[in-house]
Amino acid sequence: MCGIVGVSDNRNAAQLAYLGLFALQHRGQEAAGIVTADGKRVTGRTALGLVAEAFPELTLKTLKGRTAVGHVRYATSGDGDLKNAQPLIFDNVHGPIAIAHNGTLTNAFSLRRKLEKRGAIFRTSTDSEVIVHLIARHPGPVEDAVIEALRQVEGAYSILFVTPTKLIAARDPRGFRPLVLGRLNRSYVFASETTALHQLGARCVREIEEGEIAIVEDGHLKTLKPFKQEKKAHCVFEQVYFARPDSVQFGKGIQETRRALGRELAKEMSGTVAADIVVPVPDSGVPAALGYAQESGLHLELGFVRSHYIGRTFIQPAQVLRDNAVALKLSPVRELLKGKRIVLIDDSIVRGTTSRRICSMLRAVGVKEIHMAVSSPAIVSPCYYGIDTPSKSELIAATKSTDGIRRFLGVDSLHYLSVEGLLRAVGGETPENTSFCTACFTGKYPTPIVDFTIGQSSRKGDFRPALNGIEEPASEPVKEGKQ
Amino acid sequence: MCGIVGVSDNRNAAQLAYLGLFALQHRGQEAAGIVTADGKRVTGRTALGLVAEAFPELTLKTLKGRTAVGHVRYATSGDGDLKNAQPLIFDNVHGPIAIAHNGTLTNAFSLRRKLEKRGAIFRTSTDSEVIVHLIARHPGPVEDAVIEALRQVEGAYSILFVTPTKLIAARDPRGFRPLVLGRLNRSYVFASETTALHQLGARCVREIEEGEIAIVEDGHLKTLKPFKQEKKAHCVFEQVYFARPDSVQFGKGIQETRRALGRELAKEMSGTVAADIVVPVPDSGVPAALGYAQESGLHLELGFVRSHYIGRTFIQPAQVLRDNAVALKLSPVRELLKGKRIVLIDDSIVRGTTSRRICSMLRAVGVKEIHMAVSSPAIVSPCYYGIDTPSKSELIAATKSTDGIRRFLGVDSLHYLSVEGLLRAVGGETPENTSFCTACFTGKYPTPIVDFTIGQSSRKGDFRPALNGIEEPASEPVKEGKQ
Amino acid sequence: MCGIVGVSDNRNAAQLAYLGLFALQHRGQEAAGIVTADGKRVTGRTALGLVAEAFPELTLKTLKGRTAVGHVRYATSGDGDLKNAQPLIFDNVHGPIAIAHNGTLTNAFSLRRKLEKRGAIFRTSTDSEVIVHLIARHPGPVEDAVIEALRQVEGAYSILFVTPTKLIAARDPRGFRPLVLGRLNRSYVFASETTALHQLGARCVREIEEGEIAIVEDGHLKTLKPFKQEKKAHCVFEQVYFARPDSVQFGKGIQETRRALGRELAKEMSGTVAADIVVPVPDSGVPAALGYAQESGLHLELGFVRSHYIGRTFIQPAQVLRDNAVALKLSPVRELLKGKRIVLIDDSIVRGTTSRRICSMLRAVGVKEIHMAVSSPAIVSPCYYGIDTPSKSELIAATKSTDGIRRFLGVDSLHYLSVEGLLRAVGGETPENTSFCTACFTGKYPTPIVDFTIGQSSRKGDFRPALNGIEEPASEPVKEGKQ
Amino acid sequence: MCGIVGVSDNRNAAQLAYLGLFALQHRGQEAAGIVTADGKRVTGRTALGLVAEAFPELTLKTLKGRTAVGHVRYATSGDGDLKNAQPLIFDNVHGPIAIAHNGTLTNAFSLRRKLEKRGAIFRTSTDSEVIVHLIARHPGPVEDAVIEALRQVEGAYSILFVTPTKLIAARDPRGFRPLVLGRLNRSYVFASETTALHQLGARCVREIEEGEIAIVEDGHLKTLKPFKQEKKAHCVFEQVYFARPDSVQFGKGIQETRRALGRELAKEMSGTVAADIVVPVPDSGVPAALGYAQESGLHLELGFVRSHYIGRTFIQPAQVLRDNAVALKLSPVRELLKGKRIVLIDDSIVRGTTSRRICSMLRAVGVKEIHMAVSSPAIVSPCYYGIDTPSKSELIAATKSTDGIRRFLGVDSLHYLSVEGLLRAVGGETPENTSFCTACFTGKYPTPIVDFTIGQSSRKGDFRPALNGIEEPASEPVKEGKQ
Repeated sequence: MCGIVGVSDNRNAAQLAYLGLFALQHRGQEAAGIVTADGKRVTGRTALGLVAEAFPELTLKTLKGRTAVGHVRYATSGDGDLKNAQPLIFDNVHGPIAIAHNGTLTNAFSLRRKLEKRGAIFRTSTDSEVIVHLIARHPGPVEDAVIEALRQVEGAYSILFVTPTKLIAARDPRGFRPLVLGRLNRSYVFASETTALHQLGARCVREIEEGEIAIVEDGHLKTLKPFKQEKKAHCVFEQVYFARPDSVQFGKGIQETRRALGRELAKEMSGTVAADIVVPVPDSGVPAALGYAQESGLHLELGFVRSHYIGRTFIQPAQVLRDNAVALKLSPVRELLKGKRIVLIDDSIVRGTTSRRICSMLRAVGVKEIHMAVSSPAIVSPCYYGIDTPSKSELIAATKSTDGIRRFLGVDSLHYLSVEGLLRAVGGETPENTSFCTACFTGKYPTPIVDFTIGQSSRKGDFRPALNGIEEPASEPVKEGKQ
Repeated sequence: MCGIVGVSDNRNAAQLAYLGLFALQHRGQEAAGIVTADGKRVTGRTALGLVAEAFPELTLKTLKGRTAVGHVRYATSGDGDLKNAQPLIFDNVHGPIAIAHNGTLTNAFSLRRKLEKRGAIFRTSTDSEVIVHLIARHPGPVEDAVIEALRQVEGAYSILFVTPTKLIAARDPRGFRPLVLGRLNRSYVFASETTALHQLGARCVREIEEGEIAIVEDGHLKTLKPFKQEKKAHCVFEQVYFARPDSVQFGKGIQETRRALGRELAKEMSGTVAADIVVPVPDSGVPAALGYAQESGLHLELGFVRSHYIGRTFIQPAQVLRDNAVALKLSPVRELLKGKRIVLIDDSIVRGTTSRRICSMLRAVGVKEIHMAVSSPAIVSPCYYGIDTPSKSELIAATKSTDGIRRFLGVDSLHYLSVEGLLRAVGGETPENTSFCTACFTGKYPTPIVDFTIGQSSRKGDFRPALNGIEEPASEPVKEGKQ
Repeated sequence: MCGIVGVSDNRNAAQLAYLGLFALQHRGQEAAGIVTADGKRVTGRTALGLVAEAFPELTLKTLKGRTAVGHVRYATSGDGDLKNAQPLIFDNVHGPIAIAHNGTLTNAFSLRRKLEKRGAIFRTSTDSEVIVHLIARHPGPVEDAVIEALRQVEGAYSILFVTPTKLIAARDPRGFRPLVLGRLNRSYVFASETTALHQLGARCVREIEEGEIAIVEDGHLKTLKPFKQEKKAHCVFEQVYFARPDSVQFGKGIQETRRALGRELAKEMSGTVAADIVVPVPDSGVPAALGYAQESGLHLELGFVRSHYIGRTFIQPAQVLRDNAVALKLSPVRELLKGKRIVLIDDSIVRGTTSRRICSMLRAVGVKEIHMAVSSPAIVSPCYYGIDTPSKSELIAATKSTDGIRRFLGVDSLHYLSVEGLLRAVGGETPENTSFCTACFTGKYPTPIVDFTIGQSSRKGDFRPALNGIEEPASEPVKEGKQ
Repeated sequence: MCGIVGVSDNRNAAQLAYLGLFALQHRGQEAAGIVTADGKRVTGRTALGLVAEAFPELTLKTLKGRTAVGHVRYATSGDGDLKNAQPLIFDNVHGPIAIAHNGTLTNAFSLRRKLEKRGAIFRTSTDSEVIVHLIARHPGPVEDAVIEALRQVEGAYSILFVTPTKLIAARDPRGFRPLVLGRLNRSYVFASETTALHQLGARCVREIEEGEIAIVEDGHLKTLKPFKQEKKAHCVFEQVYFARPDSVQFGKGIQETRRALGRELAKEMSGTVAADIVVPVPDSGVPAALGYAQESGLHLELGFVRSHYIGRTFIQPAQVLRDNAVALKLSPVRELLKGKRIVLIDDSIVRGTTSRRICSMLRAVGVKEIHMAVSSPAIVSPCYYGIDTPSKSELIAATKSTDGIRRFLGVDSLHYLSVEGLLRAVGGETPENTSFCTACFTGKYPTPIVDFTIGQSSRKGDFRPALNGIEEPASEPVKEGKQ
């Protein structure tokens, strides 16, 4: 996953982008970058690590210009990856252009192969670079080149482009990833989530619409909708897990939505378990647990102390720390839990290994019964639109029955929210008529998946390397129509 | 403040000490150190920063030996300070000896002056080094030298010493700072808090008693109580704020104690305010807020989202981040708070500046009434026993009336827990007959303060530099008896 | 200037390339790089600084594969320049290809402009990248693509290319820069100078001929001469200054050639000055001074002690050191020089500032007369074929008369070797019929200079940045035919 | 070996000390340090590596004060050694005092043992720290304490002390190590060699005499000679090898002295060998070779090209580089040497391994006869006064006969200068009546050697660690009287 932020017409553009990235840090902790444009040049810096680590004082001061775009990225670790960190700046016939992209393209590999055959030299292994090569091959004004380039790509994108004089925002026609527009005095601000707007003092104006292109130049905003209209496919996992609780999406606070998920879960589970207390897995399970407690009438108890000192540090910690990561992060409060029957609330289960360790820690301090309740449906299929889910073979719900998962976790009962309950809670919708993409819970992908074998992680195949005759995909990707 | 941990008779001694330090990270984030003893040598490493940053993989592996002692330290920043990071190792007539000290001595400066007159050369500006010089000047077995040295110092200390073959623990006769003894198979484990014992898999045996010396040698534990018995003076601020919620002190879980503080506060405030919801300042205010909600019957709401990405990073972040530190760390959830009358719960107020910013953020999202409720009494006097409180002139409650503080914070009403309520909640005691030191809340110090002017921060005068004729204390320290 | 080395079919290929680069360090101290090919992949590392700094132990070990190519580079300082360090690896339709280039192309900017108009995205500001884009746009076998690409470029190049399975060497049709072929058991070795061959234990086979392409694949060497034959134009400044004294070029030892230059100079100066001793400027003036002493019968004296501790260090030294750089590097031996009339021998004078400081130091220790004798002609024109001379306005001999230079240096007389003497000494040739390029001494360029204004430094205009509408060349480059 | 420099009464004191250290870099490349005093404080910095690496721009600027002392050190590598780098600053009853010491004490271990028994805590493993502990235990004015401390130590010392207001220089009564006094306007300058005075623009006033103490305070110089007079014992190896050729000692230029050694050698060898040319081992053999050539009438030829890129870099180079260190540093000029009979001149032979490799390289390029001629006598005994010679068992001349050495080196004949010739060349003295210490050539030590077993390297036993019951010397040191 990634987060993006853009600021126009502001003498503190880089500082504001930095604050915005900080608020979007949960969307990507691997690398961070900021580029600025001063009317003549586009310059920038990317670095591995958290925003606060990537931009020390002096570095930030060197980023001059009244337009800035920032990007945070979640991906693999390793030095080599720095070349993939965004925003990426490319020199081409239009002059320098920077790109910051949230989402994943589903036909990038095919396009890259075609471009390489026509002489293109790729610098990164990102799907985003394909868009820039398409732009570089199109004459005429840069916004026309952007539109023509985007016409050729498939999949999910919320993108910010920067040229020396323009800031361009674009969102794909299905609107998989969020993108909002804000205003701060005379500046236009774009961001993945509203919390970033608030953080830098801007007010939220509206969402960038599905398929909309917004161009800021000379202090003016111009918007276009050049693409064919498609059925909306907002990512529902943003609601369940990804977005920050203090953000607002589609007019509704995320924390409220998550509390509603907890309430819906309590309704669906009503009468099925006898428990003493409700215990959230911190921090992601807390809002749903509050909703569950309110709906069920059970007491909420903070059964875990969460350490604030474990996390992604720039310096690789010792093995002994990594081995004990779960226990170091979450410490059960023995006195509170001993002998109790608990409903344990988490927002989702991916591989199940963390949940299993948590449950085993709970047993060790004497919890009597664990009723695991998940405030979303079982994840059965990988995401190809920007969320970093593992391949089907690693998704516990794709390989085990609910009872198999229950036994794996070592709990007394296991409960998932239904897809119906999920859509009801997030927006009063039904599976038959929804504006959300629920592919991870249902396996129904709203677009063709050109470049990936369904079931394979988009992360691993991430982006196939250059067509150098060496690392061809092991199996031919399957095309799969909209369902 | 500092945290200490010691492990004997274990081939993974350094790793265990590391895990223990990790669990004690909240007691000190400035520097970390681990020393090990292998029967012949005492070697170690100290570094600035968090435990995970200070000890990368390879470093930890070089620390060999079956005894290990670790230390985390909270103090000023700056490179120069590394020389003060503990454990400190000294070569002397007894061979090498390492010291890890939690607490502050109140007569260290006077002793240092005397020792320098007799030829001593000091290496650090810590009070702890004084103890080692006293040891180095005493012949005979090292444990005798330790006892004779400790006989000469005043104030607060929980200390671990390491020689090539011995691990020695000592706690001052009043027991200001905690120190517990645990067992892990054949290993003895000492730690500031029980959570560290649990983290490394040890079970808690008992507290090291006030004035007790414990010596581990050849796998055997021997304990002595060589000092005159004094009235107990356990630090009550450990209960209120410092200790981790999952630790147990004096047989009671800290989280439970804090919930009891919240309940006591609700009782004392009963009938004084009309509010819609209870909102904690995360994370420290949460347990008291739960207690308050349960006692008062009001709903608890998570009115703030806390960022996990702000914190002490090894790399100094940009100014713009430091300027917005409170807002970046705590983000109010607008939809939840707008138009509400809230009871805002925090554990304590020191300077009041952070609370003021929090209240101003709440007003900005439309909170109608703020009733600030603090689950401890007003802090009116600096600590000279190891907690890093500022000088009296910076303590808001030492310079302003309660109504003055209320106005400074911009709240509708302000409520502190009474000293009576505090002592009732922490252990059913009364001010007249208590085992706790409450000097920060009452100004009544249980020992003479030889080296500090009362009211002055122990941090600034920290430890006076070498008697080099240059930096003499500006004013003569006042001696002040027990009151 | 740059140095290149290539090794095929050897399991220690990277180590051998490293040794070779070490021997070629004098050809470039700014950055170093090594790439290896293992039949499937091309991987590598470049770093700023000297070879020994750029490749610590561990780094070198990670470079696996039986083919390796190394490059040392002399250019501007600054972190940003790392992206220009060679060998550069590019992914393209032919798979990965690496390039290591010594020399400068004279039509690279025009070609880049054309390529960008056709959609090319450039990664570096090197002229070398143009060649790779030309290769990427040509289908068919990679060696054909290399030949077609080189057909389009003008100027100086000795290049090594690496693909997963091939090592390709190429030298331009005029042979500006040297390139030799060696053999080490079953390995083929290419290098800028013979000293590199000796350093890694290889024997010298022959020079790569002007306009020759050599391809090593599967242990076999194949050579082609696909280009139209041109008049030879070997760089004479390699003889005068650049090449290492222990290298052999065109069958003659460089140290011997330089001694011959000294002898020739003594002959030309015969009877013009009365002096007591001959003093070389270390180290470059020593061989010519020996020749001069032998021819003139004067005593050679080591009048300067040269410090081995000043030089390019990775860590930027303090200003005070840079200000005193000449004095710190060369310290005159007072006892030896006082009251003497000396012939001071140096190999060349570029800006004259260093010579001036040296002469002023000699005066300060009491030298009575200084007769400056230079073992090459006056430098009057910049090099556009790879040597980093400054622009005409900074070349002292392009702006001052010989007497003006004499006064600037503060010497009693000043003597340059004639162009005739130079060509006689290096190979018994005459200006009318020579195989050497003497453009820096005569202003007669053997090729058209498409992209540079004559007189401008090739360094500054180095390589013009991307055609981004911003940094167009201030003045239109003048085309100038062969003269 | 070490080098020291001190500057008083100058607002650029640190910069001048830095320049001085740079000129003394040949005396120590392992670590460098500078301390400054500003009337109130003594502050400083030490770092591993060369002077230019150890003091980047910003660091140097932070060293404020009108008095500065610098130190360069030659010793083992390794991070741990930083604590031993000088100048060392100690806080003690006299206030802060810094020490910079060139030389080795021969009774430091015995003194340390006594001091530890009396409570002293040592910080380093240097012999120099002993002096500071002796000072710290003496009341009264600091210069009295210095004198009393020096009265108790034996061996070699040229020392600079710094207090907030004083700069004190001291040289041991035998004057083993050099120390000169210079003047720069109102500043006094002390340095190990005159070249350092020249480098920072000072004129040489005189040597600090044997047993002299010089105190600079308030711009005035006061000198004392408080010790009993001893027979002079200037290190003759400074003349042969250690001092820089452009320094002057005892009124004579070092380069001239070395040329005289070469002439003396030619005289002693007259008629013994038939050779074509004289070839020096660069750079140390060059002056003697010039003398030899002049005396013998043979031609001097520069048979080796020396690389300036091998040397002590801060970054550890790859193993392959270390393995080929000699070949990478010295490259024979094949064309010059092939088929020749040469006299190969070097200044000294220690272990013989480097010479052996050089000779083998000469054979490989076809040298016909090698007549190795050494411009000093055979080294048969370790130095205990500051030069870092290996133990007797590693000194080739202590374990092999001259013919054995000749065979080990693989040369046709081997010639050493006689002790008589040496003393004649350096000062017209005789072995019976000399002011030089020739212990390394004769085994006759001018002082008792309290702490070392004769024959053992002073480096290994360097300085015995703290008396911690663990690392007692393996064998009891033998006392040996003056001979």
